[in-house]
Parts: sequence; structure tokens; C-alpha cells
Amino acid sequence: MNPPPNGPPDRRPGGRTARVRAQVLEAVRAELGEHGYEGLTMEGVAARAGVHRTTVYRRWQDVGGLLADVLDAAGEDDWAPPDTGSLRGDLTALNGEIHDSLVVRPSIPQALMAASFRSARAANAQQRLWEDRYQRCEAIVERAVERGELPPDTAARPLLIAATAPLYHQLVLLRTSSEPHLAAQAATTAALAPTAGAFARPAPDVEP
Amino acid sequence: MNPPPNGPPDRRPGGRTARVRAQVLEAVRAELGEHGYEGLTMEGVAARAGVHRTTVYRRWQDVGGLLADVLDAAGEDDWAPPDTGSLRGDLTALNGEIHDSLVVRPSIPQALMAASFRSARAANAQQRLWEDRYQRCEAIVERAVERGELPPDTAARPLLIAATAPLYHQLVLLRTSSEPHLAAQAATTAALAPTAGAFARPAPDVEP
Repeated sequence: MNPPPNGPPDRRPGGRTARVRAQVLEAVRAELGEHGYEGLTMEGVAARAGVHRTTVYRRWQDVGGLLADVLDAAGEDDWAPPDTGSLRGDLTALNGEIHDSLVVRPSIPQALMAASFRSARAANAQQRLWEDRYQRCEAIVERAVERGELPPDTAARPLLIAATAPLYHQLVLLRTSSEPHLAAQAATTAALAPTAGAFARPAPDVEP
Repeated sequence: MNPPPNGPPDRRPGGRTARVRAQVLEAVRAELGEHGYEGLTMEGVAARAGVHRTTVYRRWQDVGGLLADVLDAAGEDDWAPPDTGSLRGDLTALNGEIHDSLVVRPSIPQALMAASFRSARAANAQQRLWEDRYQRCEAIVERAVERGELPPDTAARPLLIAATAPLYHQLVLLRTSSEPHLAAQAATTAALAPTAGAFARPAPDVEP
């Protein structure tokens, strides 16, 4: 069915609207990688994307809108967490992916995290992306429970946070230099801790 | 001994130079808490501190210099990590302090972390402060080793990172709402993991 005249824009994948969005978001990532948040402008993005700047203003309003859409687009992929056959293997591979995405230069994830301190729209979109990613990663814990590697009452989210937080902490906030064992070490800790009783879901009304 | 005429400024604690610095840094913290990095200006700080702005420019050069000195000053205190008599108690109390400093509004530590994405001088000073704080916290691990709670070959830094990273990750980057058990849970995980063999210093030339 063809859209009626003056109807909604063509949003089919491969349609004009989708093509313009892909060009603009690619330009945002490129500008962000080269110049950081400071150098990101509506005009620069429009010029790089080869799209009229009135289109960029109408659809994304401001730099925060562009960043939010880059983050939302990142959540539209079909990424799935690694499936290596063991909890420790999955967490180590996951941390390897995180590590590589944070140490590559320029690192778009690093630039987006920095930008999320500048724009409320970017911060909200970043939060949605984190939530989506951690939710997908819960499959790692579910599979480990099915294999009998973890007790059935294991709380997935705290385990995943424990496994991944040290990498983000060291590479984004502490800005320590990247050491090859960072990814594996944090994964191993999180994989070993449950055998000592960590990550059991607390019974209600019990002191932590 | 009196300083010679035209000698170095009086840097004794309580001297004029120290007083001016204390006033200016207090003004930086206050302005940062009220307006964030965006609203931080040399003029605003000088006015709030009741100090001539040429003094502020001469001594701190720019906003990055002010932020760096606030961070350096934070490292000049006599803070010591909690000493509760147990590893889990120490880490839980430590995380309680971190938690409170991050959820209070305005949170100066949060504002300084955000600012460290904007200024290389602030980023360097933030890094020095992290290093100083984690170094002081190594006493927690040393005491636990002395008490026999941890094996003597325990690597202190990764354990401390594992204990504290989840809080920073959730409250600074993920911006999840504060839950009362966050602080204790991460501390418990890090305290339990060594009993399963995490944080043993790796033997050289062994695959992680």
C-alpha cells in the first residue's frame, strides 16, 4: 500500500527517511570521534551527512537530540551476549568486547558517556541503552543456572554489574591504563563469588 | 625566620595565602554545586570568595586550574578508611561513605567527575585523587590479611576496585536510583570472592 499524499514519511528500512537517519547518525559518530562533544554542531553534522540543515533541525532539534538518537540506534541492533559454554567464558568474552570498545581511539561509547553528562536527552537515552544491554546479558546468567553452574536463586543483575563495573570504573572514571588482564580478572571474580554465596537473592526483610 | 621582602608568599597554614586559597576553593565547590561546570566562571568564583579576580587568574589561570586545586585539596585531608574489625565491615562502611557522597544533592564528587571529562587539568587531578584514596584503602586489605581473613597473596587493588566499582558504575554511569542495599551488596561480593580464589596475585607468565 502506498502512503497517501502528505502522509507520514516513508519509514521502511531502506526508505528515504531511514537512509537520511543512517547518514546523519553516521555523521554524528564521525564528528564525535574526531572533535568530541565540544566540536559537535548541527551544521557540521548536516554538512558531513550531505543533508540539508533544516532537515536536521526539524527532525533532531539539537545536539542532545542527535546524541539520543545515536544511542537509541545502538539499541536497535541484534547484538547478543557471547555464548561460550561456561559462565566464566561468557563473562570474560563480554568484558573483552567492553574493553575493546573503550580502549579503541576514538571510542564512541566513551564519547557518548562523556556527552551524557552534558545533555539530559543523551543521559536518558544512555540509560535506556544500558538497561537494554544488561537485560540481554541476563541470558548469560540464565544459561549458567540451566547448566548448574549457578544456584537457581542467583540475582542476575548484581552479578552482571559486578562482572562489568570494574572495567568501566577503571577505563572511564579512573582512566588507568589498559592492562591485558583487566577483562578476565573482573569476569573471574564475578564468576567465583557466587560459589561463596554472593548474588543469592536476599530473603525479604533480612538485614543485608 | 621572617621571609625576605618580596620573598615567597606566606604559605603557612592560617597565613594569608592559605586563607585566600581556602576561600576560593570553597567558592568553587559552592558554585559547582549550584550551577555545575557550565556555570563555573573565574569571575563568579572571585566574587563569591570576595577575592580580587586578578588574584584568581594569577594563581589558578582558568576553570580547569580551579577544579584541579579543589581535587588536590581533597587529597590533603587526613581521611582514613573505616576500621570496623572485619573485611566485610570495612568494605561495607567504605561503600556507605561513597554511596552517601554520590547521592547527596548537590554531590561535589559527582560534579568533579563530570567536570573531569571537560578539562585535562581536572582529569589529571582527579586521577591523582583516585590513586591517593585507593592507596589509603589498601590498609583494609592489609588488616584483613593480618587477621587471617584473606590469604597473604591477595592483590589489594583489584579487591578494592571490585568492592567499590559497582557503586560508581550504578550511581555515576548507569544513573540507577539509589537502593539501600547497593553499598553492602558490592562489599559482600568482594569480601566473599577471595574465599573462592579471586584476587590471588597471578603467578608470572601464566595465562589469566
